[in-house]
Order: sequence, then C-alpha cells, then structure tokens
Amino acid sequence: MNDVTTQSRRKFLKKAALGSAFAGGAFSLPVLTHSEELGFPENLPESMRVPGADFSNYGQPSEHEQGVIRWISANPAAPGNGVSWTPLHDLQGTITPNGLHYERHHNGVPEIDPAKHILLIDGMVDKPLSFDVKSLMRYPMVSRTCFIECGGNSNSGWRSNPIQSKVGYAHGLVSNAEWSGVPLKLLLKEAGIRPDAKWVIAEGADGSSLNISIPLEKLLDDAILALYQNGERIRPENGYPMRLVLPGWEGILNVKWLRQLRLTDQPAMSRDETSQYTELMPDGTARQFTFINEAKSLITSPSLGMMLPDNPGVYQISGLAWSGRGKITRVEISADGGDTWVDAELQGPVLDKAFTRFCLPWKWQGEYAILQSRSTDETGYVQPDRETLIKNRGKHGFFHYNAIVSWEITEEGDINHVYGYDF
Amino acid sequence: MNDVTTQSRRKFLKKAALGSAFAGGAFSLPVLTHSEELGFPENLPESMRVPGADFSNYGQPSEHEQGVIRWISANPAAPGNGVSWTPLHDLQGTITPNGLHYERHHNGVPEIDPAKHILLIDGMVDKPLSFDVKSLMRYPMVSRTCFIECGGNSNSGWRSNPIQSKVGYAHGLVSNAEWSGVPLKLLLKEAGIRPDAKWVIAEGADGSSLNISIPLEKLLDDAILALYQNGERIRPENGYPMRLVLPGWEGILNVKWLRQLRLTDQPAMSRDETSQYTELMPDGTARQFTFINEAKSLITSPSLGMMLPDNPGVYQISGLAWSGRGKITRVEISADGGDTWVDAELQGPVLDKAFTRFCLPWKWQGEYAILQSRSTDETGYVQPDRETLIKNRGKHGFFHYNAIVSWEITEEGDINHVYGYDF
Repeated sequence: MNDVTTQSRRKFLKKAALGSAFAGGAFSLPVLTHSEELGFPENLPESMRVPGADFSNYGQPSEHEQGVIRWISANPAAPGNGVSWTPLHDLQGTITPNGLHYERHHNGVPEIDPAKHILLIDGMVDKPLSFDVKSLMRYPMVSRTCFIECGGNSNSGWRSNPIQSKVGYAHGLVSNAEWSGVPLKLLLKEAGIRPDAKWVIAEGADGSSLNISIPLEKLLDDAILALYQNGERIRPENGYPMRLVLPGWEGILNVKWLRQLRLTDQPAMSRDETSQYTELMPDGTARQFTFINEAKSLITSPSLGMMLPDNPGVYQISGLAWSGRGKITRVEISADGGDTWVDAELQGPVLDKAFTRFCLPWKWQGEYAILQSRSTDETGYVQPDRETLIKNRGKHGFFHYNAIVSWEITEEGDINHVYGYDF
Repeated sequence: MNDVTTQSRRKFLKKAALGSAFAGGAFSLPVLTHSEELGFPENLPESMRVPGADFSNYGQPSEHEQGVIRWISANPAAPGNGVSWTPLHDLQGTITPNGLHYERHHNGVPEIDPAKHILLIDGMVDKPLSFDVKSLMRYPMVSRTCFIECGGNSNSGWRSNPIQSKVGYAHGLVSNAEWSGVPLKLLLKEAGIRPDAKWVIAEGADGSSLNISIPLEKLLDDAILALYQNGERIRPENGYPMRLVLPGWEGILNVKWLRQLRLTDQPAMSRDETSQYTELMPDGTARQFTFINEAKSLITSPSLGMMLPDNPGVYQISGLAWSGRGKITRVEISADGGDTWVDAELQGPVLDKAFTRFCLPWKWQGEYAILQSRSTDETGYVQPDRETLIKNRGKHGFFHYNAIVSWEITEEGDINHVYGYDF
C-alpha cells in the first residue's frame, strides 16, 4: 500500500456506510444550460449553412474520434509479435466494432489469398477432407455472439504495484463480436471421426506456424469455423479468411488463418501449451490446458483516465462482465472497497459466454471511495478478489488473471488503480 | 409475365411437389478434394514462410473484400442527396458492420464538432433544456439492437417489371446495429412535459435542416438518443455526434445529427411528412404518418447475382426477416412460387424489432424453381404477396413496400428476380 492510499484510507474509514450512496430510480442530473442563454435556434451552426460531404462506399469513424484506437504493445525486435488492446474505456454497449477487436499475433498478420487458402481435416479420420472458402459457403452457417479473451489479459494484475493504465489498455485483450460460420462438428463428422481420436491439433497459416491442441469434445460442441465477424468477412488481423471460434475458451485456441485440424489421441505438447500458456502453481505443480476464461468484470466508467471533476452528483457506473462457463447472472458493485455490495442492473439480452453490460447510478459527494465490481455466472462461480486469487494461484502467475479490479476515487475526483485497501 | 417465365412455368408445373426438396438433418455436401491430391502439408503456403504485417490501431477489411461496399445512388445535380445501399447479399449473421450501414442523406454528411454540438429540448415543456455530449455522458445509457429501414426501401417493387439488382442493392436500405445512448424519456421528463404536448418536431443539424414530426408517445416509449453504434461512437454518416433511434419506425424519423426536439400539440406538416413519405391510396385518400415498418423478409442466399452452377445438390437457403411491430415468430420458405411452404429455422436470439436470420437446407437437382420467403411477427401480421400488397395499396406507391420477394432459379442455375408466376 502506498502513502496516498494509507492517508486516503483513514478518511475513508471515517465515512458512513456508502452502500446507501447508490441512487434509486429518480434523480436529476446537470444539464448544460437553458436555451435562452444560447441564442438558439437563431444561431444556426455552420453545418446547417453548407452542403455536407458525399456518400461513402465504406464508412470510417469521425476524425474527432481518432484517439479511439487499439494500443499496440509489440516486441521492437519482432514487431509482428505482441498484442493490441481494445479501448474498452471508450466503448459502450456490448459489441466490439471490427476495427477495434483486440489482436494477438506471434509473427504478424499474414497476407492470404482466400481463393488459394485450404483447410485440411486429417489424422484420425476415415477420410481426410479439404475445404476452400467456396465449398464452405455451401454449408449451413450459424451465428454466435461471444467474447474472445487472451489468456494473458489483465496479467499486469500479478505485479506488486497496480499498473496505472486505462481500463482497455490493461484489460482490453478481450472483445465481443457476432461470429458466423460453419459448425465444426458438421465438417468433422463428414470426415468420419475414428473412435480413438480425443484431441485436435489446430494450425494457422501464419509465419509462426502456430499450432495448439484442443479437446475434440469442444469442437463437437459449440465450435465454429468462422468466416464472418459482425456481419462482414473476418478482417486480416482476426484470421481472414477463416478462424476457429471456441466460445468461452482462451484466445490462443481460437486459431486464426486456420489451415489444418489434425485429429489425434493425445495433445501435441507444442510450444504454446508447454512453455507458454501454462503456470507454476504454489504447490509446485504446473497448470496446463486451462482452457476456460472464468467469470470476470470491469467497471469501464468511471475508470482510470477519467475524472469526477467539478460537480459532485450522480454518476453512472457502467461496465462489462463475462464468463466462459455460461451466462452472467449477477454483478455487484461496492463503493467502499468491498465492505458492502449492491446489485447492478444487467442489460439484456444476457447471452451465453458473451459480454453483459451492467450499470448502476451512484451519488458521489466528493468523498473518498473504492469502486469495485464482482460478477457471478450461472454455474455459481463468483469472481475472486485479488487476495483469494493469489492465495490459490501464487504470486508469480501470468495467465488467466480475473480478480476484482479496484478504482480509487480521491476527494478531488482523481481515479487511481489500487489493489484494495487491505493489501 | 415475360416469355422466359412462361416457358419455364410449363416445365415447372410438370414437376412433382417441391416441398419435399427441403433436406432433413443429414446430408452430404461436396468438399474440395482429398489431401493426397494437394501435397499437403509439404507445400507450405507463402504466408507461413515470411513474417506477417504489423499491428494496426484501427483495422480495415481485407483487400480481397474491396467489392463489399455500399452502392451509392445519389442525385448527380446534388451529390449529397440520395442513398447508399447495404450489401446484404455479401453479409452473414445479423449485425451490419458500421462501415456498411445504409445511408440516406438529404444534403450530405455535415461536419460537426462534437464539443460544440448542442441538443435543445423546448416547446411545450416546463423549462427548455440543452445538452451537449459531455453532459449526456453523465446520464444512464441503454443498448438496443434493432434495425433501421428507410421508408423507401425496396420501392423498385412498385415497378411493372422486376428490377434485376442484387438483393442488397434493391432492398439494402435497411441495416441492423446495437445502438447505445440515453433513453429519451429521461431527458423529456427532466424538461417537464406540459399536458397538451402530443408531438415532437425533431430537427437535424445538416444542410437540409431536416425536420419531422414524431408522436410524443413513441419518444416516451423506447426511443434512444444514440451516441454509440456497435460499441463505438456513431459515425458521421449515421448522425455523429448523436441521433434519434426509434426502434421499428421508418428511417427518416431516426433523425441524425439531432439538434432540437420541440414539443407541440400538433405535427409540423413539414416537407418530409407531406410531399414525401406519404402515399396516394387506391381510394383517393392520402396515407400519412405511416411510421411502422411492417414485417418483411428476404432470401439473401441464393439470390440474384449468384449461381447454382455446376453441381446440383444441397444448398443452404439463408435470409433476413424483421418487423417494426416486434419479434419475428415464423419464416416460411417456398420453392414452388408459393404453392407449398416449409418452416425455416430461426437463428437465436430472436430480438424485438431486429434482424432475425433464417435458414433451411434445400436440395436442388437442376429443376426450375421460384424461391420465396414469408415472415410472420408476434402480432400475427403476415408478410403479404405482391398481389395482395398492390390490391391494398395501389400500383403507384413509393414507400413501405414489403411484399414477398421471388427468386427464379432456372434449370441452368441462373437466378432472376420475378414477381411470381401468376403476375
């Protein structure tokens, strides 16, 4: 705990119970000004005095929104190896627009001619089969809105000191989109699955030859060979012309630029399931094949980088929750660092393994506060606090960090990332 | 009926009932080839031999998808007056990506500085109120996935001869997105609605000073002052920095670049509710204030511009249905021009006043066919055939054309737009 937090905590503890600060249905918010003060509508804006711009074949965001971008963290020595973060703090609703879906590449974004790209299904099958885009277009398609989250998302949470980054740039290796494509089980069954097959080695057509082992069971469940993302063809950085989508399972398994599915009776023990995407646990054992992204939540507003500046009053707490095990059933909010909790409203439709936005009005009167959100999914799993997560997983983890995130609100309205007040 | 259709009809009538052509659960589809013929995986593609491209701050579609664009129909004398069509024939799922949402502008796309834009609520209110973007960000937000459809969408259907355009370029003045923003009722109630107020005149900040009258009741129901579209801020052509979204009501009422809502006791009788967006009916009366887009559906695949070429077999019929009155409850498919119908599968989640994708496998053996879809919504409203629509609405309509669309499949696999075989 740093000095600022210690000081603030003292003031904090003097406050009355803050649970009652969550506003009820009726409240009033500041408006800009009354119309008399504006000379409105006599002062027509310039935009009404001139013809506007022409139509466009393919639209782009406003030039005033050029700051709403993916933030790139790539290896300077190998610029195609790294990540780009979705700016969750700038977004609303639940869909991540295609231009802002997070990226994780191991050797850059391959250029692939879709007319030449072929997916091979082979190994322990009755007959190996190959498919190009054209043949896949003849198959039944399904659509599914779900999140994809990198196993390494939020891993700055393992650091001793809380990172002071905007919420998207610390937790934005997760995005949510409507994926459309062919149910994998149709293609696998057409190839004929031999009885001993238990695993599938998936390989991408990129310069890292990324391959990874996936239990066959998942591919026969809800896996999609996705060709479309939010209505249009998948973009290059998201796997054009085709990728695996495994709802609720960690990002790396959702293999992009998919070129091969080889059925086997055991995992390949490839780089990304041995030296990476595994973890040493406190008892000395290694955790491997941790496929599922467990329940998580984040308050996206207010959050670090914003301020609650000049006018205390009602603020809307808003954020995102998701679980790889199913639907989110509950999100609770605390303004006192976890002593008391109030249920947030979940915005519908609440979908399986997809972003759910939650919201709760909050009256802020200039007092010190620690805002937190805690999600629960339909299996009953409750998002852990950081202390519990570290107790179970140790201090030196790297993957699957899903602890409660705490935003400190100072009396001045500044927002800092803290680890709670009892760390 | 033209000669080709007459000839084809004769062959058509000789066929057995085609309802049985809809395939059941199990069927096999052509795959490209077996792996032995490919030298796979020895022949690694070029994309695996070189590093890929760098990360990008904001992604764009693949260069191989440059043909997937909005098609622009604008007035050459006033290039900011016209429409751009969503390429529905190239899309899958239900979300329209932001770059491809249809546009309808009356005087181009205004350039608006969001820091200076102000929305005024005045007229029959207790106190006129103004809001800028910053103040609106303090209000509770909701998200809602819904379609917006231009009142003039599909109006080529009134022509004597069926237009031979791709489905999106005849019916693509409709798109579907997740809109997020402030419930209008919160803002109106804050201003205080006087008892006599019944209408609201909404005005946009564009060069056409577009204004139009909306029943107050709708704004107090499910209207949204939208700031976000599919997660990110609304794009310029869709109303940046803010627009009205009135789920299920015709496009022009969803006023873009919204700058004023004036409460009144009667409609304004503005240009776009008198000389436009109204229709002369067969009985000589004028139809005005036809706000709701009634149930409609389209088969997007197979559709005009595609072919069922070399290999007869199983094809997936896929399309979109929507209704401004609520949820779609049923979509039926006919392959024999409407004699027999089979229920399509509706892909979930089926949302209120939003695109619903339907699908049905269909065995095509090279026979002449006329494919049609017919939607029903939760009010029991059934999409009419063209004959019924014209009987009720006359031959000279222009707006709200929602008749069943017919695709003629020739023995050669060509696809034409026809008006059915009994017109």
